[in-house]
Amino acid sequence: MRLAKVIGKVWATAKDDSLRGLRFSVIQPLNYRREPEGGTLVAIDAIGAGEDETVFYVGGADATLAFPGRSIPSDASIVGIVDRVHT
Amino acid sequence: MRLAKVIGKVWATAKDDSLRGLRFSVIQPLNYRREPEGGTLVAIDAIGAGEDETVFYVGGADATLAFPGRSIPSDASIVGIVDRVHT
Amino acid sequence: MRLAKVIGKVWATAKDDSLRGLRFSVIQPLNYRREPEGGTLVAIDAIGAGEDETVFYVGGADATLAFPGRSIPSDASIVGIVDRVHT
Amino acid sequence: MRLAKVIGKVWATAKDDSLRGLRFSVIQPLNYRREPEGGTLVAIDAIGAGEDETVFYVGGADATLAFPGRSIPSDASIVGIVDRVHT
Amino acid sequence: MRLAKVIGKVWATAKDDSLRGLRFSVIQPLNYRREPEGGTLVAIDAIGAGEDETVFYVGGADATLAFPGRSIPSDASIVGIVDRVHT
Repeated sequence: MRLAKVIGKVWATAKDDSLRGLRFSVIQPLNYRREPEGGTLVAIDAIGAGEDETVFYVGGADATLAFPGRSIPSDASIVGIVDRVHT
Repeated sequence: MRLAKVIGKVWATAKDDSLRGLRFSVIQPLNYRREPEGGTLVAIDAIGAGEDETVFYVGGADATLAFPGRSIPSDASIVGIVDRVHT
Repeated sequence: MRLAKVIGKVWATAKDDSLRGLRFSVIQPLNYRREPEGGTLVAIDAIGAGEDETVFYVGGADATLAFPGRSIPSDASIVGIVDRVHT
Repeated sequence: MRLAKVIGKVWATAKDDSLRGLRFSVIQPLNYRREPEGGTLVAIDAIGAGEDETVFYVGGADATLAFPGRSIPSDASIVGIVDRVHT
Repeated sequence: MRLAKVIGKVWATAKDDSLRGLRFSVIQPLNYRREPEGGTLVAIDAIGAGEDETVFYVGGADATLAFPGRSIPSDASIVGIVDRVHT
């Protein structure tokens, strides 16, 4: 997983049927000092994070596991809202 | 998922049987400001996007989930047409 | 998927049993202008492409889907021979 | 797998149900000389590694295999504590 | 798959149960000219390659397919020993 900040939203009327009703957040990946690192992504929010919150997301094929019992074609899913990072 | 712009098409007569009848789009990944970011890809269009449209695509192994009930060897599938990005 | 050019072959006598009888091609990934982009890979040819041909390959976990009914540990499979790229 | 050093922890109260009770470690990937290489990640610890320990982690979709019988949306799981690297 | 050279070993007493009895090799990925390219990895050897040998390995989720009937959390598995590369 990587840390990220929620920086926006994407609206898409025409989309894959399995994606209806889901929220698409624009996220900026962060390093452990919460500095931007790498390009922005569109992630499906499985947890209800608000804008400007620090979250962590799971990337790759296991991103779909954040939606048990469904078959969601996601490669980035927000799975937690970060309270604190200690290093 | 990542934002991308559809910039072309690929024709391939000889191809894996499971890929017959599908549309192969050349896409340029974009950042949230819709600026090009990263190399061009060939994506399978699951949604019917036209040239020059901004879309989002799912990469990696879950790209095949955009084709339920089929077994498509895809690592990049267009799953939505973007109406608006708000950041 | 990405475009690539077939630039060679790999011979390997000692290999995983599931890989016997398959052809291992050295490929150079290309951008949409057919210029080299990224490092060379070893891909399994599912389609019978010749040397110097432009192909597209599927990477990652879905590369194994190019071999239905088998369980091939492949992370790059050539699935189409490119006739034309239009952008 | 890659070598990494455990450099911290992440606290997240709001998270995907499947992630409850797991430990989220901040890790810095290392090369074989144990020098930092690449960006920091958040990994799920399947083995009980302490801070400052050198570990190896599995990334990508197979990270979930470190938790047999469960369906954990993880893309980075610590699966071993390194005693020695010989090169 | 990518070419790589076996450059060492990793010892890890504490590790995921599914990983017991396996050999962890440090590998340096190579391009088709057998020049180093990209960072070093820890790969599970499915084929019995010796140090200094040129091999090819499968990365990502399909690395686990090199161990049929088992559920190994591997993202890099050595699956062949290279006799010759022709380009």
